[in-house]
Amino acid sequence: MIEDCVFCRIVKKIEQSWIVYEDDLVMAFLDTNPASEGHTLIIPKKHYETIYKIPERELKRIIVVTKKLAELYKSALGARAVNILHASGREAQQDIFHFHIHLVPRYKNDGLNLWYRAKPKVRAELDKTLQKIRYQE
Amino acid sequence: MIEDCVFCRIVKKIEQSWIVYEDDLVMAFLDTNPASEGHTLIIPKKHYETIYKIPERELKRIIVVTKKLAELYKSALGARAVNILHASGREAQQDIFHFHIHLVPRYKNDGLNLWYRAKPKVRAELDKTLQKIRYQE
Repeated sequence: MIEDCVFCRIVKKIEQSWIVYEDDLVMAFLDTNPASEGHTLIIPKKHYETIYKIPERELKRIIVVTKKLAELYKSALGARAVNILHASGREAQQDIFHFHIHLVPRYKNDGLNLWYRAKPKVRAELDKTLQKIRYQE
Repeated sequence: MIEDCVFCRIVKKIEQSWIVYEDDLVMAFLDTNPASEGHTLIIPKKHYETIYKIPERELKRIIVVTKKLAELYKSALGARAVNILHASGREAQQDIFHFHIHLVPRYKNDGLNLWYRAKPKVRAELDKTLQKIRYQE
């Protein structure tokens, strides 16, 4: 546990939270500044800052819990759809440096715009990029 | 394969694409309208529309590939950070109805704003919400 990490304090139940789900590895709780009803954060209980640091085991558990909650929110909240959002690193606008996934349920005519409308300044040169990153196991 | 699905056509290599990674279950290729250099889509090879439909096995593989690519893009592209974005369902602003995760590498002073700044119209009543969705295995 990191003393000054709000998510570590939530895991330890020192900080108040609205816990939706908890198991040995992960926890899901309501975002206290929700973009929509049921806006949930899913985190590893252990403190890993980013996707670069979290082990695959916990990451896989988190994505499965995210799927299960997305399904639950259809029936329990009447959600029609869902956005999943994540940031790792300051340059990606990460705010709290304990890995977390945002699950934002979406509703008919909810008036939200959670999708980016980035205007790429430069259209990347795809062939050149691909040379640098083609990946094999 | 769904004939009129562009991602199915990419999987079958009928449609041109810039493939970063491919295995028996998943494929990763460059977004042709990239928000940043290395903007990648990771998909299951089989046609599942949404997170509600994709099996856990493929979902887990996709998130692990996403992590590995995020790591690769640090060294290969000089990315400092990464955003992961996903939409399931029309109300979540999904565009192509073949499950996909966006991996958007972020760079120092890239000037992008991929994070939402939703102004919640109504601050949800967390206790009331929690009653509806507390989840146990």
